Amino acid sequence: KKYMELYREMRQDIVEGRYGFSERLPSKRYLSEERGISLITVEHALALLEEEGYIEGKERSGYFVSYQEGDVFPVTDKEEKAGFIDFFKRKTAVSREQMSYPTIAKAVRRAMSKYQEEILEASEMQGKFFLRRALKEYLRRGRGIFVEEEQMILGAGAENLYALLAQILGEEKRFAVESPSYDKMQRIYESHGIQLELLPMGKNGIESAALQKAKAKVLHVTPFHSYPTGITADASKRREYLDFAHRNGAVIIEDDYDSEFSPLGKPEDCLFSMEAGENVFYMNSFSKTIGPAFRMAYLLLPKKNLKENLEKISFYSCSVPVLEQCILTELLESGEFERHINRVRRSRRIRKKSREEE
Amino acid sequence: KKYMELYREMRQDIVEGRYGFSERLPSKRYLSEERGISLITVEHALALLEEEGYIEGKERSGYFVSYQEGDVFPVTDKEEKAGFIDFFKRKTAVSREQMSYPTIAKAVRRAMSKYQEEILEASEMQGKFFLRRALKEYLRRGRGIFVEEEQMILGAGAENLYALLAQILGEEKRFAVESPSYDKMQRIYESHGIQLELLPMGKNGIESAALQKAKAKVLHVTPFHSYPTGITADASKRREYLDFAHRNGAVIIEDDYDSEFSPLGKPEDCLFSMEAGENVFYMNSFSKTIGPAFRMAYLLLPKKNLKENLEKISFYSCSVPVLEQCILTELLESGEFERHINRVRRSRRIRKKSREEE
Repeated sequence: KKYMELYREMRQDIVEGRYGFSERLPSKRYLSEERGISLITVEHALALLEEEGYIEGKERSGYFVSYQEGDVFPVTDKEEKAGFIDFFKRKTAVSREQMSYPTIAKAVRRAMSKYQEEILEASEMQGKFFLRRALKEYLRRGRGIFVEEEQMILGAGAENLYALLAQILGEEKRFAVESPSYDKMQRIYESHGIQLELLPMGKNGIESAALQKAKAKVLHVTPFHSYPTGITADASKRREYLDFAHRNGAVIIEDDYDSEFSPLGKPEDCLFSMEAGENVFYMNSFSKTIGPAFRMAYLLLPKKNLKENLEKISFYSCSVPVLEQCILTELLESGEFERHINRVRRSRRIRKKSREEE
Repeated sequence: KKYMELYREMRQDIVEGRYGFSERLPSKRYLSEERGISLITVEHALALLEEEGYIEGKERSGYFVSYQEGDVFPVTDKEEKAGFIDFFKRKTAVSREQMSYPTIAKAVRRAMSKYQEEILEASEMQGKFFLRRALKEYLRRGRGIFVEEEQMILGAGAENLYALLAQILGEEKRFAVESPSYDKMQRIYESHGIQLELLPMGKNGIESAALQKAKAKVLHVTPFHSYPTGITADASKRREYLDFAHRNGAVIIEDDYDSEFSPLGKPEDCLFSMEAGENVFYMNSFSKTIGPAFRMAYLLLPKKNLKENLEKISFYSCSVPVLEQCILTELLESGEFERHINRVRRSRRIRKKSREEE
């Protein structure tokens, strides 16, 4: 494969320092003409180098070397043969959007050398404070969500958060959920003795008539990209959800599991931000953005009744290992997490454009 | 401190190769006489070197160098100043019995280089097969428990297993538990809508009269070192628990959270092994043996109704990150886990002996 040849050659040039850290690479056009290969082939090679963390594309100014000596575990030929970088053969679009191994390996290494023996110390129930601080900064910077460390809980995936929510809000014994909606979520609520009120979905979100009649004091919604319908609630529908909560003295669980990569949803428009978050519990996970092998999700609690709500689950231990918490902190603080989000967004735009041109 | 001087000097000798890998160290008596320091001081220094993974004591034959070049992250003076090895100042006996940072750091490194991109692949619900295989071998070898990979589930700590058990066995809506017993366990069962039948503890375990009258079809017991009473059930009491299960068509949950370090409990005498495990669910965690920061526990299911029981929780994802699973596999397969267990057992024996001599 021609792109693999170019990829290997450039990787070697980078690892051996012929292209130095932060140096700019020759343009795609130049590489294509110089070698007599197509622009697409060059782009494949560069995309692979970027995915693996050797270079970084900057909008309108080309590609720059992001590899520093000793920084990563460079891919060896042996690993290549073992299928390590069988990048363009990967099965699904989702897996191509996960974080790459070198990025994660680098974060593991840095986390180990930075946190040392701290990885042995049991976590606070809500998660290590330094992770919550890093997450708070990311949410402010990248998502326009303002929240304090005290309002956050880390958990081993969304499933763990559903269980915690059932115990915080379960006195009501009745949750309203979108119909259809995520099967696991429904089953976990039910396993905690909660009855589900199924509200049918219209074009735009939950049908207004059904919402009007709902009796539950807890409403679980996925305003962005509801599963499995793919429906996104527009501003007026989101307003309707909030109005429902005000009118009925209800609280909302906003499940925002898939909004990070969206070019659409302006994140500052989440329900949690729309009104100062008095009645909204917000949850999101890193299963799509980092990968399902990581088991990390977070819950933001409203300030109202914060102490009482935390009290109800205070007997639990944090379900995320401290090492994983240190790795996530490193990914957030180094900016790698946001660079990854941006890379995926860019590649989605490119794929979308090329589909439209076909 | 004199022991720190000796510790530092010997560590340097080891790291710089003056004592080579697997070489035997001079005897304690020799070191003590040569330097004019007490035997206790020498023992402190050697204990610290062993705790940190530089040397390994062998019964009746002295200490041998276990450090190999490039193998570990050697402790630097900077880390020392940051309190990294403030070993003898640590608060509790429990934390001194946790696995040491160098042992874990080594396992992280080896797991990364061995499993590579596999750390990105989502886990099967029950845990990665390679981990379950390593655990199966350890249980056979070290604990006399015979079990198949299909009967095992990994979870993020005992709390996660209580929740899974509530969903496997929760149709009964009534569990009998020891009174007093572990508060968290009780609260997690209750949060799944399960009623608890509290059976008072006698000298030896649950009082026979109370057990006779119990109506529950699920009996949760900690035959070894029940919390908080510290009671251990002898062979005849354990037999009574099994008889209760047979007579009432009940199943037993055997919570074996603290038996690893015991010089007492012969592990082959656990309920799960005593009868071919038809009615016994066995659970244990790594919170005491590795450390609470790791969040790993395992459940062994009986072969009877295995498929049906797994089906009830099949919608869950495994709650343990894959990286942690790889690290645990490495600790089990390398023998580090068992060496650690043996070290702690030995040091408990020594402490016990020195208390008796005082």
